[in-house]
Amino acid sequence: MTSGRGLRVGNQQHLSGQHTEIQYKVDLEPVGRRALIAPGMTLLDAARRAGVEIVSVCGGMGACGKCHVRLVQGELTPPTSVETRTFNPAELAAGHRLACQARPLGDVKIDIPPASLSTPQRLQVEGQESEVAVDPVVKRVDVTVVPATLHDLRSDTVRLTDALAEQDVPRPFFDQPVLHDLSGKLREQNWSVRLALRRRNHRSEPRPRGEVVGVLRPEQALLGLAVDIGTTKMAAYLLDLTTGHTLAKAGLMNPQIAYGEDVVSRIAYANRHADGRHLLQARLMESLNDLIDQLCQEAGVTHEQIVEAVVVGNTAIHHFFAGLPVRQLGESPYIAAVTEPLDICACHLGLKLASGAKVYLPPNVAGYVGADHVAMLLATDAWRAQKPTVALDIGTNTEISLAVEGQILSCSCASGPAFEGAHIHAGMRAAPGAVEYVQILDDGVHIQTIGGKPPVGICGSGILDTVAELRAAGIIQRTGRFQPNHPRIVPWDGGGAFLLAPAANTGNGHDLIVTRRDVNEIQLAKGAIRAGVEVLLLEAGLTAQDIDTFIVAGAFGTYLDLESAIRIGMFPPLPLERFQQVGNAAGTGARQMLISAEQRRLAAQIGERVRYVELTIHPSFTAVYMNAMYL
Amino acid sequence: MTSGRGLRVGNQQHLSGQHTEIQYKVDLEPVGRRALIAPGMTLLDAARRAGVEIVSVCGGMGACGKCHVRLVQGELTPPTSVETRTFNPAELAAGHRLACQARPLGDVKIDIPPASLSTPQRLQVEGQESEVAVDPVVKRVDVTVVPATLHDLRSDTVRLTDALAEQDVPRPFFDQPVLHDLSGKLREQNWSVRLALRRRNHRSEPRPRGEVVGVLRPEQALLGLAVDIGTTKMAAYLLDLTTGHTLAKAGLMNPQIAYGEDVVSRIAYANRHADGRHLLQARLMESLNDLIDQLCQEAGVTHEQIVEAVVVGNTAIHHFFAGLPVRQLGESPYIAAVTEPLDICACHLGLKLASGAKVYLPPNVAGYVGADHVAMLLATDAWRAQKPTVALDIGTNTEISLAVEGQILSCSCASGPAFEGAHIHAGMRAAPGAVEYVQILDDGVHIQTIGGKPPVGICGSGILDTVAELRAAGIIQRTGRFQPNHPRIVPWDGGGAFLLAPAANTGNGHDLIVTRRDVNEIQLAKGAIRAGVEVLLLEAGLTAQDIDTFIVAGAFGTYLDLESAIRIGMFPPLPLERFQQVGNAAGTGARQMLISAEQRRLAAQIGERVRYVELTIHPSFTAVYMNAMYL
Repeated sequence: MTSGRGLRVGNQQHLSGQHTEIQYKVDLEPVGRRALIAPGMTLLDAARRAGVEIVSVCGGMGACGKCHVRLVQGELTPPTSVETRTFNPAELAAGHRLACQARPLGDVKIDIPPASLSTPQRLQVEGQESEVAVDPVVKRVDVTVVPATLHDLRSDTVRLTDALAEQDVPRPFFDQPVLHDLSGKLREQNWSVRLALRRRNHRSEPRPRGEVVGVLRPEQALLGLAVDIGTTKMAAYLLDLTTGHTLAKAGLMNPQIAYGEDVVSRIAYANRHADGRHLLQARLMESLNDLIDQLCQEAGVTHEQIVEAVVVGNTAIHHFFAGLPVRQLGESPYIAAVTEPLDICACHLGLKLASGAKVYLPPNVAGYVGADHVAMLLATDAWRAQKPTVALDIGTNTEISLAVEGQILSCSCASGPAFEGAHIHAGMRAAPGAVEYVQILDDGVHIQTIGGKPPVGICGSGILDTVAELRAAGIIQRTGRFQPNHPRIVPWDGGGAFLLAPAANTGNGHDLIVTRRDVNEIQLAKGAIRAGVEVLLLEAGLTAQDIDTFIVAGAFGTYLDLESAIRIGMFPPLPLERFQQVGNAAGTGARQMLISAEQRRLAAQIGERVRYVELTIHPSFTAVYMNAMYL
Repeated sequence: MTSGRGLRVGNQQHLSGQHTEIQYKVDLEPVGRRALIAPGMTLLDAARRAGVEIVSVCGGMGACGKCHVRLVQGELTPPTSVETRTFNPAELAAGHRLACQARPLGDVKIDIPPASLSTPQRLQVEGQESEVAVDPVVKRVDVTVVPATLHDLRSDTVRLTDALAEQDVPRPFFDQPVLHDLSGKLREQNWSVRLALRRRNHRSEPRPRGEVVGVLRPEQALLGLAVDIGTTKMAAYLLDLTTGHTLAKAGLMNPQIAYGEDVVSRIAYANRHADGRHLLQARLMESLNDLIDQLCQEAGVTHEQIVEAVVVGNTAIHHFFAGLPVRQLGESPYIAAVTEPLDICACHLGLKLASGAKVYLPPNVAGYVGADHVAMLLATDAWRAQKPTVALDIGTNTEISLAVEGQILSCSCASGPAFEGAHIHAGMRAAPGAVEYVQILDDGVHIQTIGGKPPVGICGSGILDTVAELRAAGIIQRTGRFQPNHPRIVPWDGGGAFLLAPAANTGNGHDLIVTRRDVNEIQLAKGAIRAGVEVLLLEAGLTAQDIDTFIVAGAFGTYLDLESAIRIGMFPPLPLERFQQVGNAAGTGARQMLISAEQRRLAAQIGERVRYVELTIHPSFTAVYMNAMYL
């Protein structure tokens, strides 16, 4: 720890007594790592320094064109001739560059597309398979019509309607975009088509008229897409709408990360830039279309077979996705434009699905409790719990529900991005080389990294473990202060740091440390979560010991060590058997709503039944929160 | 007539014995005139030669930038420095040029935007004012909501819905595009809005739920737009939806003319070019948006107040407008993709109306009898005639209906574009300088032109009069042949020509002639119309003398001389009082459907009630047609 090389030097934070050379900060998204480099170094150098592996077949000679990145912010050297050969002017203008060619001229932020990352990040796509009866809102009808002649001049839609009537199918509505290629398909397919008919209204006449949302060949299966869009990650599932089976799964980082770690910064970005909201929406659609391509390829199907989709996300993501205004979401009192369920035409969003496919968005509860939480309550059955049940999904924002005897109380707390690796000195997302588990024993510090690689940073479960172990070993006090005389405590601005792994053992040649500030970030985060749980219990007149089931959903929730979480006081001290770690339950809920109209009805009920508790104006919140921050 | 200068020299048609120099053909659209120019001459020269007045304040010095035109086909000299200063690269790439700078390098086709024409063409926007009870599908509801606070976190839509419930308005649907600015407007307008609520279904529950299609300020009037799009011309009307009054009217040429005189050529264009259909749709929307701007400016309103629109046109125009496939319309058996009424979101068409405004398209009858004919039958009340009533709208395609005792028979005949001035040697559209009325008396030929200007061509009513007068004066025979020894008959390829005005008296320094081929074109056109009427009479078991009312709609129908039309046999010889020239009845029908839900219901009924008679396979058609061609 004698040199400051490679350590994070923020604008306000300088190492005292250190000789300061000019260094540029390179923020690498979506992995969430930062490197400091000297002027003249390339982006590829920066990535290597940060332990982020960018594909570089030619080793940085500018020959392979694989190290494709995109400039989000800041300035780079002008494109080299290698780059002008690789990219067209429009791409160059949009910031596309080769990492081995481009050199920062100041602090920059870079977006690394998935194809340029040599090892994928760990994405959470697993979750319980759904166990609901298959009854989707879109069903198939095969129909063959009499060809048109000069003696039979009925229009194509009338011809189809008449043929459907013979099968006792009521006159359908034809969705506008479907009409754009219906006539061509009828003729190409020799007047035989498989129609995807969508139920238009649940509670209307006994024989409700359906809506034609897709026109397929008679042998093509009807498919559906379920997507869970998190602030950081996206998970997508391709399902067969007839069997209800999941055919393919895929995950990807949320590309909006480049515009802000959390939704509040993204809303601020959208407010500052004239078409910021549309840009953020467009980036989402690009990535979703990539996911759709990937799923279709894996399952050997075409995107035209995907006749229905369900998308869940928090309220801000929901609004960005649907193109809704977000300004009022970012300012007190944080009002959602819409909380009711929505059906949006995929073609108007720019999603590559069947021409008339609709995207169903389940209801939101409030500005900071979104459709993903509703989906989670649905998938875990928490919403109908009779015995006290807590269900939460930890993220930058943590949504918590307490259900008991048919009542549901929900709240949202700003737990911050610490568990995503942000605001943590050596923090990173759950990618290869991230420390995920830590044990401090008498013989020293034991760490486990994702992929078993030499450590380059710490992800959420790793930092949680570290703090719990430091506390158990007495290296930090209840307030979060370090014991100053422990041999692994090194001097560090703002209260010292704990040396988790010395430079010799790490993947990037730097000491891996956990600072006093890092511990404080975790205290703030875990305190907010615990306070949310406690306030809901207060509202329901219960105590922590009354909790029968404690459901932990989401990616971080799957990997976190429950004992560590209890030891640092993030979760109440309940017997471990009362806890359930359910994985991506929001994704499971989305899949259930994709294959079952009944599940949508229930989701709408949940949306209406939840009573939202606004923590910031709750009389007990501040005191509970202050108390919950102790370790 | 000693020189060939300025005369139309087609590819297959050369003047024998004339010294042929290289000449380029310059087609000037939308006026429909052609000039022949020598290499090196400018487009402005060509326009002047053809008698088309392009705005040129500086007199062709390249200083004023007013003579803006667009290249549609062919090649011009590269842009001059004057032009690169006037247009940006994208505009230049799209063919935008200055007429005084650009010189053809071969045969070219040029589109002259309305702003560059010094005298506007005569456009048909007049029609009977509607006399229907005002009951539009969109109505206003004024509502003020309680502002959001941390103690009242209802979403904006829930807040509005709750406030509407207090006024006993059932929970509305919120149209997707409306949600994009609802939240902003609520806050800007201090939580008071005027909602435009659209009736969603006529025959549903007793208290049907409406759809929010616009959000206005409480003092803003709800407006509607009615448009009649013809193959050649467009007429648009802005109405107050509360009073039913027409606030402004405007006409414009159909910009698709540059891609084909008639719909068949436009369909062929769309089939040949990958995105031809979308290009033709986009040009239509551009012009409609210009019309909307013009109407809004005239009435002192904003386009956000226009919360509903009705658009009528023939089936091909309808399909181009709605983005429907047209290939099957252009090939036998000429099948419409859709004949049912449609509601299309204006925002998805790119029309500048209120964010959620819908465009209602009335039903089509068949591939060549469209919604404009239905609108005409509605506006003239012809559809419910008890006594035999013929109603027709003459255009490139002429649609004819015969109504009697509640039955309606309709047919369509290819009357060709002769009455629009096309395929006629000196033909032009009804623009200043066009001969519109002709009398041949003993003392010579008397002509009247539009705007009283020196003649430069002949429009539809002028050519009709000319043929009728030539026949009456015995200058042409029953078969259409000229009497060869008449003093005003001049030699001309293909059977001679009649000298209507010598070069000394015309506006472009050329002899104005009517050729044997022109007469033949008129014979074909009027024969087709008369044959259509006769076949419908045959189908109904009636004769021409049984016709009680003979309704002539449309622009040409307004200006044509009924006696001339009867004299050449285009119309049956009925007493003049049985005829009604009703102007733009399709536009009137569109206005009625805009302000009355009941009129839409009737239009749907008309669409279903019409029996379409396909002339091409009718056993009597050929014989009747041959006979009808005699003068």
